[in-house]
Amino acid sequence: MDKTDLIVRAKYVITMTNPLIIEDGAVAIDNGLIKAVGRASDVLSQYRGEEVINRDRHILMPGLIDTHTHTQQVLLRSFINDERLALPPLWTKLLIPFEELLNDELAYLSSLVSVIAMAKNGITYFIEAGAPRPRELIKAINEVGIRGVVTRSTFNVRGDKITDADDAIRGIEELLPEVNDRVRVWCSIRQVMMATEDLLLKVKDYCLNKGLGITYHLGEYQGEVDYALTKYGIRPLEVFDKLGLTLVRPTVIAHAVYLSSRERAIVRDRGLGIAWCPMVDSIAMGLHWLPMFNDALFGFGSDGGAFTSLDLLHETKIARAVGKALTVGITYDKSSFNSITMLRALTGWGGLLIGDNVGAIKEGFKADLITLRLNDARALPAYDPVESVVSFLDGHDVNDVLVGGRFIVRDGKLFSVSEDDIIEKLYAVMPIVNEKLNNIKYGAF
Amino acid sequence: MDKTDLIVRAKYVITMTNPLIIEDGAVAIDNGLIKAVGRASDVLSQYRGEEVINRDRHILMPGLIDTHTHTQQVLLRSFINDERLALPPLWTKLLIPFEELLNDELAYLSSLVSVIAMAKNGITYFIEAGAPRPRELIKAINEVGIRGVVTRSTFNVRGDKITDADDAIRGIEELLPEVNDRVRVWCSIRQVMMATEDLLLKVKDYCLNKGLGITYHLGEYQGEVDYALTKYGIRPLEVFDKLGLTLVRPTVIAHAVYLSSRERAIVRDRGLGIAWCPMVDSIAMGLHWLPMFNDALFGFGSDGGAFTSLDLLHETKIARAVGKALTVGITYDKSSFNSITMLRALTGWGGLLIGDNVGAIKEGFKADLITLRLNDARALPAYDPVESVVSFLDGHDVNDVLVGGRFIVRDGKLFSVSEDDIIEKLYAVMPIVNEKLNNIKYGAF
Repeated sequence: MDKTDLIVRAKYVITMTNPLIIEDGAVAIDNGLIKAVGRASDVLSQYRGEEVINRDRHILMPGLIDTHTHTQQVLLRSFINDERLALPPLWTKLLIPFEELLNDELAYLSSLVSVIAMAKNGITYFIEAGAPRPRELIKAINEVGIRGVVTRSTFNVRGDKITDADDAIRGIEELLPEVNDRVRVWCSIRQVMMATEDLLLKVKDYCLNKGLGITYHLGEYQGEVDYALTKYGIRPLEVFDKLGLTLVRPTVIAHAVYLSSRERAIVRDRGLGIAWCPMVDSIAMGLHWLPMFNDALFGFGSDGGAFTSLDLLHETKIARAVGKALTVGITYDKSSFNSITMLRALTGWGGLLIGDNVGAIKEGFKADLITLRLNDARALPAYDPVESVVSFLDGHDVNDVLVGGRFIVRDGKLFSVSEDDIIEKLYAVMPIVNEKLNNIKYGAF
Repeated sequence: MDKTDLIVRAKYVITMTNPLIIEDGAVAIDNGLIKAVGRASDVLSQYRGEEVINRDRHILMPGLIDTHTHTQQVLLRSFINDERLALPPLWTKLLIPFEELLNDELAYLSSLVSVIAMAKNGITYFIEAGAPRPRELIKAINEVGIRGVVTRSTFNVRGDKITDADDAIRGIEELLPEVNDRVRVWCSIRQVMMATEDLLLKVKDYCLNKGLGITYHLGEYQGEVDYALTKYGIRPLEVFDKLGLTLVRPTVIAHAVYLSSRERAIVRDRGLGIAWCPMVDSIAMGLHWLPMFNDALFGFGSDGGAFTSLDLLHETKIARAVGKALTVGITYDKSSFNSITMLRALTGWGGLLIGDNVGAIKEGFKADLITLRLNDARALPAYDPVESVVSFLDGHDVNDVLVGGRFIVRDGKLFSVSEDDIIEKLYAVMPIVNEKLNNIKYGAF
């Protein structure tokens, strides 16, 4: 019998490969990687685990991937009421001014809160949309132990003020020494409206030279489309395509609500990823048409804790509702936008979306895994584990979270950092942050 | 100082009346009713509680009202996958045949699971859409201790078979002796397509004579509208209105997705209630247009555990996403369908929707209250308790549930019944039910 570090046995294993579901399955993990997956009897007869854990009323599946989050906006949580939400546009009036108020201490606290919440919710990998203070985020990732793609908030146009594109590039370069097994660095662009053509070209060259991925906000609202048409004569994604940014792999475009059919063709032909943020796209942008043109590689994004509880299982239910409402209402198609598609979006299409060996339980892939409890009157019966995940379970049902074969959460308990201490710190800073927020002048009155 | 049974003090009290929010508030409860609400210092100086509990990191608010649920369909949970969902129509092909398979034991287990899940999720009052075995539901309500409007599944047309309308009426009459402080009995009609005109008239007369409320499924899909137009020459709600059913108070119409402007006028002019089921309406019926014509008394419904985890706080987030996506996408209105409206829908508009003194914290109203914890990295900061409830908290954050001043759930622990025992029973019956379900012949293949 081969020796292996850990064997996890579960009532159902959702592999995201073939076969999709293994009943009474087990996964053997060694040195951070998946060594074997199969029926428990087969795995246990072939491998002897240093540790064997039984999850006999649980689903075991790949860790979830948040494809778009703002880890340093969580201190805004519950501040954005309906009136503030309607500000045109919210990100220049409130989100960016808020980020400018952050010091290292608040950015670090915010990063920790976000990373802890993600870990508890079963998110093992995330793409930061562009942190104002990325070093503080890296500290938080290293402490909590999940994986993150770190990006710095990159722009050089702010109202009438234009700053040097090379400074922005240096801000990314500074982060590269921090890369490790769990921290990746990509480039990001805040928005076509906040970048000169010079910056766009320099970011592209930097990504291609260094082999970095990229993420950017795009197709968020009508004003942005008009901006691109006015300045470049073409729509936002056509601008990025013309300048060569769509050659970067991986690319994840956040939101992409307002795409023309030509832009959708660019997404498909270049194999770009879309980060659909179900709640935020709904409340701030309108109906997301992706379910009607379901030919893109896409994932779910929380868009950060300012707007959501960072629970992708919950976001999936929102996506399913919005998506099916559209296809049922418009083409009377109820089996569209189905549960398997939801699961693929949650787990990053076997790593394609993020360019890493995650998102499927197969030999050689990273042992980033979660278990979900099936022991609540709110979730049972569970005849079909796929339907259970997509329709009934949420972040509160996460029992274990493993990253690279190491427990981050075990039996619902977070390791490595004390959530209680963080909550005390949050309560201490809440009045201070609230006052700062109330001092932001974002409207006429 | 006046003596009172219980005083609950909380960081925030959301009263659903004026003032909406009391910081560091307290509620005095006596003999099942609310005696006083105000600032904690005022309440505590005026009343001496037999018991005083402090919820210093919690929101205290009225219990939630599920305006449409099928308590005896929960054993279908996770069985309705995308293909089954697309069956035309699901309710006659799968839901009704499933209900016909139930025996008393399964109906009772199902009722218990549903009522337990509701209690844990902060639902203190619900409207049953029409149970096949209502006596078993009444047993479950009496055991767990929340309030329910019980109705019997009422129809007399099933395919080609028509049964006696008087039998259906007798089925309701049998339940009246069971009415108590927590159990109400209303009439229900399954669907215009499953009732003869004779039955509709008899149910109307029975409600008006006995002073009972009514609920019915209506405006669910195109086939139903065509049925009414073919048989009666008018649309479904126009049929009910012409026959006088809209004189019944209270009336709660479930779904009401496909309403003409004339039908919307009937809803408004007669003061009828709408039960919007955010998830189910989205996945099975299409876009719910209510947010675009926001002039009706409406509540949220789970539509039962077959489709949802019976978590109305979660359903609210889906409603908000769908509602705002429509208003933002179509009229570019982001502050529509706002958080206060969401809260009103959750709590029954101060009892108007359900015809009882619940849904607001004010003197003389029933002490049906819940507290929600603010102690999770997934939910903090909480500057604004209304935004916290609407956007960040869900059923898992419920700490206490009181019905008529009595604890049903305290510090997250359910009283009176053992959820663990129920879960063991569920695991025992799951294979049996699964086999029954697989034997239902609902498609061509």
